[in-house]
Amino acid sequence: MSELASWRDGTAKQAIQAFVADVDARGVPDDERVAVFDNDGTLWAEKPMPTQLHYLLQQWAAAASADPELAATQPYTAAVSGDFGWLGGAIDKHYAGDDSDLGLIIRAIVRATDGVSVEDYEASVADFYAKAKHLTLKTPYSGAVYQPMVELLRYLEQAGFTCYIVSGGERDFMRPMTVEYYGIPPERVVGSALGLKYTDDGTVRYGADLAFFDDGPEKPVRIWSRIGRRPLLACGNSNGDVQMLEYASGLRLLVHHDDDTGRGDVPYDKGAEDALTRGFTEISVRNDWASVFAT
Amino acid sequence: MSELASWRDGTAKQAIQAFVADVDARGVPDDERVAVFDNDGTLWAEKPMPTQLHYLLQQWAAAASADPELAATQPYTAAVSGDFGWLGGAIDKHYAGDDSDLGLIIRAIVRATDGVSVEDYEASVADFYAKAKHLTLKTPYSGAVYQPMVELLRYLEQAGFTCYIVSGGERDFMRPMTVEYYGIPPERVVGSALGLKYTDDGTVRYGADLAFFDDGPEKPVRIWSRIGRRPLLACGNSNGDVQMLEYASGLRLLVHHDDDTGRGDVPYDKGAEDALTRGFTEISVRNDWASVFAT
Repeated sequence: MSELASWRDGTAKQAIQAFVADVDARGVPDDERVAVFDNDGTLWAEKPMPTQLHYLLQQWAAAASADPELAATQPYTAAVSGDFGWLGGAIDKHYAGDDSDLGLIIRAIVRATDGVSVEDYEASVADFYAKAKHLTLKTPYSGAVYQPMVELLRYLEQAGFTCYIVSGGERDFMRPMTVEYYGIPPERVVGSALGLKYTDDGTVRYGADLAFFDDGPEKPVRIWSRIGRRPLLACGNSNGDVQMLEYASGLRLLVHHDDDTGRGDVPYDKGAEDALTRGFTEISVRNDWASVFAT
Repeated sequence: MSELASWRDGTAKQAIQAFVADVDARGVPDDERVAVFDNDGTLWAEKPMPTQLHYLLQQWAAAASADPELAATQPYTAAVSGDFGWLGGAIDKHYAGDDSDLGLIIRAIVRATDGVSVEDYEASVADFYAKAKHLTLKTPYSGAVYQPMVELLRYLEQAGFTCYIVSGGERDFMRPMTVEYYGIPPERVVGSALGLKYTDDGTVRYGADLAFFDDGPEKPVRIWSRIGRRPLLACGNSNGDVQMLEYASGLRLLVHHDDDTGRGDVPYDKGAEDALTRGFTEISVRNDWASVFAT
């Protein structure tokens, strides 16, 4: 694992090793060795749709079957009919700057947990991970994890780094799987957050709002809030990761899904040339990874 | 340090030791051993005023001297005249349920950092801690730290606990001193937060708002947001800590400043009897601590 066994001896691996050697040579203290990773499309696959949408489809379909009026609106219609295209399109529209469909999704996300305790949601999500299969890989979602990235997390930890997830995905949907899938504990999972409230029965419950969407310029803000340090390394795969990468003072890694397996994730749409001018180091899935998933 | 040397062999020390023995006997995994501590009045003195007000007085006096119109308003008038009574009264009024003066303070707090980078503020606060003297103890603020509590932090850590600060005080005002004073790194400091924004020059800066005031029912919310676990142990000293103590599933410690040194901090106003009915374990400064400050 720690030897980056799934990485080809290409430019990305060499850049990572040179970065760690430089940090060591400069004697950077361990507590400044902070690395941040996007999740969807960076640590695991986000096609044909983000994992959370799969979970929500189940929740929305159940809610729609109990409420015909609800079933006539999006995203419940899509959930009942299995129209994944509408959902994937909402994400594509977001990355193109149009958040109209995303707004409907966010409203339905909030509705699914309004008033639910954090423990009950945690149990529901854990149950999903225990039973669900990735829609195209047909494996449990652990099979959608990018093996080279797990090796990179361990490689950095062995070099004294502390690794965090900083995702546009919802924080408490990730937490039930991050220890098992990535070795990242819940206190190091940063993500979009539903509003929370404390109720007199001693319980923290979700409210009727989205507290923040952890994407784009929000990512550096959430990194500072949670960690209180500027990261040395950041790794992402999409336009929503650009500010996080710029915020990192050292190595800025951009995963480029240029393989031809049909797993291609949400692209960083400026392409490799622009990434180079920004000082990002491209991770080419085709050229830098010897294998993609754990076998 | 780890032997609770500054604690008398009284009820509080015995309760702490019994709690840790029980956690060990039940084989609770280390990652579930989470402890949360209020800061002002719990880990260090908050009289004659919270430390941050001392810092802000300096900032406000400087701002008022450059702007006579500002100098005619509170809290700038208090800062220029050295009328600490108005400021202390604002906190007392808050704990009595009247936030009118606190509102003026919050507006001035926000104004002091609006547009400032987190790094510049960090440097300014670090400079304050390096130079300022506690107003009555006449020592650096490290001398206002409660020695028994530092010993408790180390005692819990040796028992596999991870300790967090969860304070009504402002997060980034605490972070520059928590490693040195308490051995708590910035990622484990939770507190009230100024709004943040990311600017195109790759910098995180404070905005013109208070994001949230981490007090009362907000404390369990922020504990879940940051840590993603319910703590086993919580320790506080005031009404603002009640919900945090209720949220802890194991030992709930309430520091009671019943000594006669004039250091008495903001009280938990329901008294020891009510604390007992809530299942809180009282830490009597007079009876449970052999010494208060490091000498």
